[in-house]
Amino acid sequence: MEARQTLSLDEIQKHNRPDDCWVAIEEKIWDVTEFLDIHPGGAEAILKYAGNDATQAYNEVHAPGMLEETLAADKFIGDLLPSNDMPPKSTIIEAAAAEASPQPPLLPQHQPSTQAQQPASLPLVYQKPPLHALISAADFQTVASHTLTPKAWAFYSSAATDLITHTQNKALTRRIMFRPRILKDVAHVSTSRTILGCSSSTPFFISPAAMARLAHPSGELALARGAAAEGIVQCISSNASYPLSAIVDAGVTDQPFFLQLYVNSDRAKTAELLRKAASLGIKGVFVTVDAPVPGKREADERIAAEAVVSAISGAVASNDKKGGGMGRLMAQYVEKRLVWQDIAWIKEVSGLPVVLKGVQSAADAVLACEYGAKGVMLSNHGGRSLDGAQPSILVLLELHRICPEIFDKLEIYVDGGFERGSDILKAVALGATAVGVGRPYLYSLTYGEEGVEHLTQVLKDELETSMRLCGITDIDDAHPGLVNTQDIDHLVANGESHDWIRWRPRAKI
Amino acid sequence: MEARQTLSLDEIQKHNRPDDCWVAIEEKIWDVTEFLDIHPGGAEAILKYAGNDATQAYNEVHAPGMLEETLAADKFIGDLLPSNDMPPKSTIIEAAAAEASPQPPLLPQHQPSTQAQQPASLPLVYQKPPLHALISAADFQTVASHTLTPKAWAFYSSAATDLITHTQNKALTRRIMFRPRILKDVAHVSTSRTILGCSSSTPFFISPAAMARLAHPSGELALARGAAAEGIVQCISSNASYPLSAIVDAGVTDQPFFLQLYVNSDRAKTAELLRKAASLGIKGVFVTVDAPVPGKREADERIAAEAVVSAISGAVASNDKKGGGMGRLMAQYVEKRLVWQDIAWIKEVSGLPVVLKGVQSAADAVLACEYGAKGVMLSNHGGRSLDGAQPSILVLLELHRICPEIFDKLEIYVDGGFERGSDILKAVALGATAVGVGRPYLYSLTYGEEGVEHLTQVLKDELETSMRLCGITDIDDAHPGLVNTQDIDHLVANGESHDWIRWRPRAKI
Amino acid sequence: MEARQTLSLDEIQKHNRPDDCWVAIEEKIWDVTEFLDIHPGGAEAILKYAGNDATQAYNEVHAPGMLEETLAADKFIGDLLPSNDMPPKSTIIEAAAAEASPQPPLLPQHQPSTQAQQPASLPLVYQKPPLHALISAADFQTVASHTLTPKAWAFYSSAATDLITHTQNKALTRRIMFRPRILKDVAHVSTSRTILGCSSSTPFFISPAAMARLAHPSGELALARGAAAEGIVQCISSNASYPLSAIVDAGVTDQPFFLQLYVNSDRAKTAELLRKAASLGIKGVFVTVDAPVPGKREADERIAAEAVVSAISGAVASNDKKGGGMGRLMAQYVEKRLVWQDIAWIKEVSGLPVVLKGVQSAADAVLACEYGAKGVMLSNHGGRSLDGAQPSILVLLELHRICPEIFDKLEIYVDGGFERGSDILKAVALGATAVGVGRPYLYSLTYGEEGVEHLTQVLKDELETSMRLCGITDIDDAHPGLVNTQDIDHLVANGESHDWIRWRPRAKI
Amino acid sequence: MEARQTLSLDEIQKHNRPDDCWVAIEEKIWDVTEFLDIHPGGAEAILKYAGNDATQAYNEVHAPGMLEETLAADKFIGDLLPSNDMPPKSTIIEAAAAEASPQPPLLPQHQPSTQAQQPASLPLVYQKPPLHALISAADFQTVASHTLTPKAWAFYSSAATDLITHTQNKALTRRIMFRPRILKDVAHVSTSRTILGCSSSTPFFISPAAMARLAHPSGELALARGAAAEGIVQCISSNASYPLSAIVDAGVTDQPFFLQLYVNSDRAKTAELLRKAASLGIKGVFVTVDAPVPGKREADERIAAEAVVSAISGAVASNDKKGGGMGRLMAQYVEKRLVWQDIAWIKEVSGLPVVLKGVQSAADAVLACEYGAKGVMLSNHGGRSLDGAQPSILVLLELHRICPEIFDKLEIYVDGGFERGSDILKAVALGATAVGVGRPYLYSLTYGEEGVEHLTQVLKDELETSMRLCGITDIDDAHPGLVNTQDIDHLVANGESHDWIRWRPRAKI
Repeated sequence: MEARQTLSLDEIQKHNRPDDCWVAIEEKIWDVTEFLDIHPGGAEAILKYAGNDATQAYNEVHAPGMLEETLAADKFIGDLLPSNDMPPKSTIIEAAAAEASPQPPLLPQHQPSTQAQQPASLPLVYQKPPLHALISAADFQTVASHTLTPKAWAFYSSAATDLITHTQNKALTRRIMFRPRILKDVAHVSTSRTILGCSSSTPFFISPAAMARLAHPSGELALARGAAAEGIVQCISSNASYPLSAIVDAGVTDQPFFLQLYVNSDRAKTAELLRKAASLGIKGVFVTVDAPVPGKREADERIAAEAVVSAISGAVASNDKKGGGMGRLMAQYVEKRLVWQDIAWIKEVSGLPVVLKGVQSAADAVLACEYGAKGVMLSNHGGRSLDGAQPSILVLLELHRICPEIFDKLEIYVDGGFERGSDILKAVALGATAVGVGRPYLYSLTYGEEGVEHLTQVLKDELETSMRLCGITDIDDAHPGLVNTQDIDHLVANGESHDWIRWRPRAKI
Repeated sequence: MEARQTLSLDEIQKHNRPDDCWVAIEEKIWDVTEFLDIHPGGAEAILKYAGNDATQAYNEVHAPGMLEETLAADKFIGDLLPSNDMPPKSTIIEAAAAEASPQPPLLPQHQPSTQAQQPASLPLVYQKPPLHALISAADFQTVASHTLTPKAWAFYSSAATDLITHTQNKALTRRIMFRPRILKDVAHVSTSRTILGCSSSTPFFISPAAMARLAHPSGELALARGAAAEGIVQCISSNASYPLSAIVDAGVTDQPFFLQLYVNSDRAKTAELLRKAASLGIKGVFVTVDAPVPGKREADERIAAEAVVSAISGAVASNDKKGGGMGRLMAQYVEKRLVWQDIAWIKEVSGLPVVLKGVQSAADAVLACEYGAKGVMLSNHGGRSLDGAQPSILVLLELHRICPEIFDKLEIYVDGGFERGSDILKAVALGATAVGVGRPYLYSLTYGEEGVEHLTQVLKDELETSMRLCGITDIDDAHPGLVNTQDIDHLVANGESHDWIRWRPRAKI
Repeated sequence: MEARQTLSLDEIQKHNRPDDCWVAIEEKIWDVTEFLDIHPGGAEAILKYAGNDATQAYNEVHAPGMLEETLAADKFIGDLLPSNDMPPKSTIIEAAAAEASPQPPLLPQHQPSTQAQQPASLPLVYQKPPLHALISAADFQTVASHTLTPKAWAFYSSAATDLITHTQNKALTRRIMFRPRILKDVAHVSTSRTILGCSSSTPFFISPAAMARLAHPSGELALARGAAAEGIVQCISSNASYPLSAIVDAGVTDQPFFLQLYVNSDRAKTAELLRKAASLGIKGVFVTVDAPVPGKREADERIAAEAVVSAISGAVASNDKKGGGMGRLMAQYVEKRLVWQDIAWIKEVSGLPVVLKGVQSAADAVLACEYGAKGVMLSNHGGRSLDGAQPSILVLLELHRICPEIFDKLEIYVDGGFERGSDILKAVALGATAVGVGRPYLYSLTYGEEGVEHLTQVLKDELETSMRLCGITDIDDAHPGLVNTQDIDHLVANGESHDWIRWRPRAKI
Repeated sequence: MEARQTLSLDEIQKHNRPDDCWVAIEEKIWDVTEFLDIHPGGAEAILKYAGNDATQAYNEVHAPGMLEETLAADKFIGDLLPSNDMPPKSTIIEAAAAEASPQPPLLPQHQPSTQAQQPASLPLVYQKPPLHALISAADFQTVASHTLTPKAWAFYSSAATDLITHTQNKALTRRIMFRPRILKDVAHVSTSRTILGCSSSTPFFISPAAMARLAHPSGELALARGAAAEGIVQCISSNASYPLSAIVDAGVTDQPFFLQLYVNSDRAKTAELLRKAASLGIKGVFVTVDAPVPGKREADERIAAEAVVSAISGAVASNDKKGGGMGRLMAQYVEKRLVWQDIAWIKEVSGLPVVLKGVQSAADAVLACEYGAKGVMLSNHGGRSLDGAQPSILVLLELHRICPEIFDKLEIYVDGGFERGSDILKAVALGATAVGVGRPYLYSLTYGEEGVEHLTQVLKDELETSMRLCGITDIDDAHPGLVNTQDIDHLVANGESHDWIRWRPRAKI
């Protein structure tokens, strides 16, 4: 057996081209030339580090060992010779903090006031408060805005273009009023709910979100452990930092999980993933249907644009007017040709119930039923796909107006802007089976698994308090009579189109 | 007879456990071990000071001598040996000011802009203006925000979670417009009103609010004296700083009082209180029905969370995710099982007319009538219970839409956000018998009894001016034709639910 | 004949009581003891200066020589001995500027953001811009806010309590949209209008406002001269700084004037004023009906409260919770018992057409017609009377909804918040005969007569431009089809009350 | 042949009167006395520089050599003697930057917050970001606000009076929501559109805007080249900095152009221009009908007012209360008498299809059809004409409500506030043939032709993304069912006037 070779960074840097591409990760050198074309995140994300050390970038989004699993053994070249020029190994958080360089942004003057920004004037040293001092989901967001790297904060907090849908998701829910009932015995209260056949201690679950390692080294593992501790369901992202099996293993026996699915343009890979999910005991598949292409998340793209400037790779990363934010990178493999007929295929391959995530009109809810979906998730991707899309809560009301019978045929999920127990109660009162909570759980990861549990307890307590103050004791007793939606009723669409706009465009010649 | 012993603080500190708990108050030492379980404010509030001097905390909320009345004589242990380490006795206000330590809050960066906050940049030395310079309720609030302790300000000014209901209470009333009539003889004007059978010089009264000693040593006594001087009615809180009898005694002969009632989970105590109230000549009972559990008042809870950190008791105060604000503490004894059938019991025990405080829907107003209430108070606890609940003025309009006949069967009271004479006139024009004014009276206490009188005069003058400018001379002549509610009419619920939402949830399996 | 005596200030100061009250004005000493009771501005305004020099306060609001006209010759006591302690004679503006002392206000922390305030940070030296640099009414307001004394600014700019009506007056007009028509010959345009039988070059006129000397020594005289130069009508306030005859004389032959009338509780005085007006050729009487008592203008009252503190009179000015602002002082003589039947009397005594100024509902417009008024002015006193009253433009729309026939029976005037030519065009398109412009003309007085002319030209140019861009050439051709009021239509009252509120209060027992 | 004379500035300055007016441009001296009366921008614009060097002002708005083309050879007087007092020749940008003098503005305190202003605190040195860092139209605006001269920025960014229409143009479009459809094959997408018979790669085109040289020396030439590169249509302004032929020549063969037309009060000149346009292959004429007179753009006029102060010409520029901004100057020659009958003449003279630019009501759209227009452009001049006019998108909805058949008879264009691909998609879904993009293209000129291309690519990418996320692949398939306009439906006029306002003014006597 050959002696393992040790190479200096100078040696590696000769292999910095698409047709001859090496990278060093954790002091091991790999030949990734052939891998470039099948990297789910796209070749460019690797080419930035061609002929260079990619440890930090790798660790931010991938679990340890994922590379070894993926590459054939003969792609291992040798060990990296330690260099005085290189920084010592450091934790992700430290490295990422260092990445937050003080260099001025490219467009410092253009900060649209609606954009979710990190506070302009950070204190010299931010003291992260103790977990018990956080008493709301908003508190977690505040801490995350101060402790995440700028890149992670931009990726998580950003939404499409002018943040209109992102903002209105929350605002419209808040404009729904309660009509509390009084003088009921509310000594005991139950928030337990059956979701897609699974028992849950709450009518909310962890909405899928990509790359949880950006927030904490344990990433999705911490979410799984927290979910187990609190008896809630986690919906795992296709773009998780950890392999699906690792996440499932992190939980407890029979813990219910759902899988969020981006169908790959290479359908075989999707089939493989679905079979794996079935074998792991996943309880349902949430197929994302609102993002055949990624939305334009400007904060994410601006951060990426800055990174390009400081990249030292020989492969020039061209900014192609579409930006190169993480959202765009990760969407490169997503199938743009997914159609209604594919639902049957997904059901067949996985043998699992299918929920369509991203339904945004009553018409598509009806079609979902016809094409065999078990449920729909009214979602606009947290405002990250098409800015201007109807807020989720409005689509929920649209179902009542246009196809009320759908509530007896499908399970109706909803997400986007639900940050309070009272927000969740409103959705359930209006017929939602359960509510997805996304960003808040990512932000809770700044405290690891304990943060996940604490956030869940905060939401559960808010929900219980809201139920008691509404005069109900079982979440299944929530009903539309508990809410007054008059403030937003006029925004609900009447049908396929306006009743007073009958014009239709002529067919294209 | 034994010689009275004198003990040092060191001695006391040995008794710092739940099963052996001493505290010193005003240089007297008491054994409160057995009292822990029956303290209306909960054991924890005392355990914070187990084995320690609790004078300051006691004085903030309790009247002098209340302890002696409550504890058996054999619980008196002895006198406290004066110590150089202890601060000299000081007034409440001074002590409280000292309490406002300059240590940074736990979550300095998260200050939701909608939260009622003390101004960030206090002047170095705030000069409290002379009383005659205050010309509105808002002026009193401003002074209070500068002169109350942070804890008192947080307790009084806070409301549930995002302050939506708190804010909309006032905002919706302000969106109602007047339609003044002209060319009427308005030389003489009368604001006198009969409220629950009592003569009042005004159609507004002092809404109940807990712990008035936080604002002034005379607390509820000053309110009683001011009410007497101005001929208005005071509704006394169950959680008053002073005993009911002391408050009644502070007034004049035949002065009308109402009692706000939190029913105790120990019904015998409630029965005792009601009999006492009847014997003292109280004119009616306002049973709180909108707070079987306390709302989540974040400002209040944040202050409490900070206090925990600085507490030096051996008993560890666990922050249980539900916060430990004064609101939560005081609600511990409140009956969560109160139901409609209990109304009859309260009437029977007290022999007094009963008003339900916290009715928030037309449906419950109708039930209140059926169950024998004399009146209802449309209230959401000043936005302190369920955030998102319909603003009070909207419920008043809902009665017109759904059950207009109720105005002939019940007395209708309303509170929440009424700070101007014109606000009060709007409610009366829309059928309210009287309007409760809460926070402004607490704030007026920063000037003691004189403040109470001055605020009353300001409101009365505003009301008279508004009546004259509307062309009426007797408050009983106010009618809906004087107001234009078009700006909020679309927010009024149509019935038990939406007319276009017919779906109801399936029964739980 | 006796020698005229000369007295020192020390001598005068002995006569500082209500029953023995002397004041010095322009170095002449007068006994005003008997005059105290009949001073239209109230005794208190004089008692502040009892036994003292009142020159400055007198000059701020009264024309020179008015005192000599009013008092009998035997009330003249003698000449004031010049003193080194007294400031040399100075112009009003200089004296007033000095009055703006740097002492801190009583309530510096309470500045409701909606209150029209002088900018917090004045430049060290404000450079008044040249007149030609002012291109809008808002520019005049800005200059006035910097150059008027705080007292004058507070009196002019203030409105009742929370400024809701003041703010909405302007806001609702701005929410009306234009529907411009195109391709019309707009080479020549005419804005001339017949107002109450008088020819005017514009469909707007100078709305009455009190005490123009606060802004400029020439006060109402400058307004009269400017109106003459521009061919517009001035409506003179009952509370003008100059006598009616002096104002009329300041104009040109046959110049049209209207008189605004506060009916005096001493009707004989009103009769005298009306006969004088008729003899001077005044063309119509605008009887104020929206202010039987003055509104609560807090900015005005706060300034007054401060002045009280610095007053050095022996007569203590009690702040009576109603404030003592100029608005309250000047309203003391106003008849609170004026009723519909008095209209006939005013017509008879004056022989002039009568317009009711301050009509705020369709019902009263109908009554105005029945009681013989020639017109109505839809007004809420610029938001200075009852805060919360319907904005004027809304009342104009209410007439269309409830009593559209009134437009053929009465002349309809409107004022409150009209600051642009386009605002004026909107009102005229909706049926207003003419629009009153108030505060902007007071502010224009900071440039004297030239300011009045310049403002008129600015408004006229804006109006002509708006007409041309709407495709009309004669202001009489304006019609409702040019505007889109949909944004505020829902705010218009439907009738005497809500169609869905049928409840009426029971009669008082 | 005479020797060419060389004169000093002193010599020239003797000819500084309207009846004897010389100016020096690029060191050549011209007699412009006779030209004064026929200068499209008015005599005053030249008289400011009478007897002086006008090079800088000339270059800002006119192309090199335009003067030689216009003036007869005998108007050339001679060469200017270089002077030490004069600055060396400099580029436009540098000169303009110098022009931005630090002298304080005339009205520094009056900055209406709604006015589009340059940021108050410019960084000491603004670093223009690289083009690839700009990812939205808003980014271009930000850069332009920092790099244009104050005069150019004021001219481009300003709108009429209070900017209400300017602001609402964009705001109302943003309030329209999308109703995305899912599970469509969106791999390939086409944005190509036929506009007035021309092929365009997009359903948007460059809206006409005057004086592009203010932003870049290449001005309209850069726009033409950028349009050619991207396959889009440019509509050239009558007030372009370059001659029409130069602009057309800058493009490629058969590149489609439209001509925006201000009809000259001297009709012969318009006829000449139209014949020239036809000979150059222009494809259509957009006749401006919303600006018979210019709107009042206050920011533009304030800048002009300041310039007057620093002008050193002997001819006194009188500020005539109408301001003297560039908008007013350039409008001096515009025909105020243009009427419907003139449409036929324009069509006849040019032989080209005519589109009416500035239609603002359904009624005029119907008339446009009757009078033979090929299309209408729903426009309010970007809010620059009549402030308060209905936003363009509202007029588009008005067509649906009042005259839906018009969509089959006319091409419907729209502009005003469209800055995102999603904005454009909304308009097309509601029946617009194409959308004009104006200011963003002017701002893109700060990067010359490359900026024009980059902006086009950004908009095209946004449009494609929005189409995909809406589930359509061909722009011609956009239809009203994709949008929810409920939030603004209530603002749409019902007909010629309100259905509830029947009153019409009496005819003028």
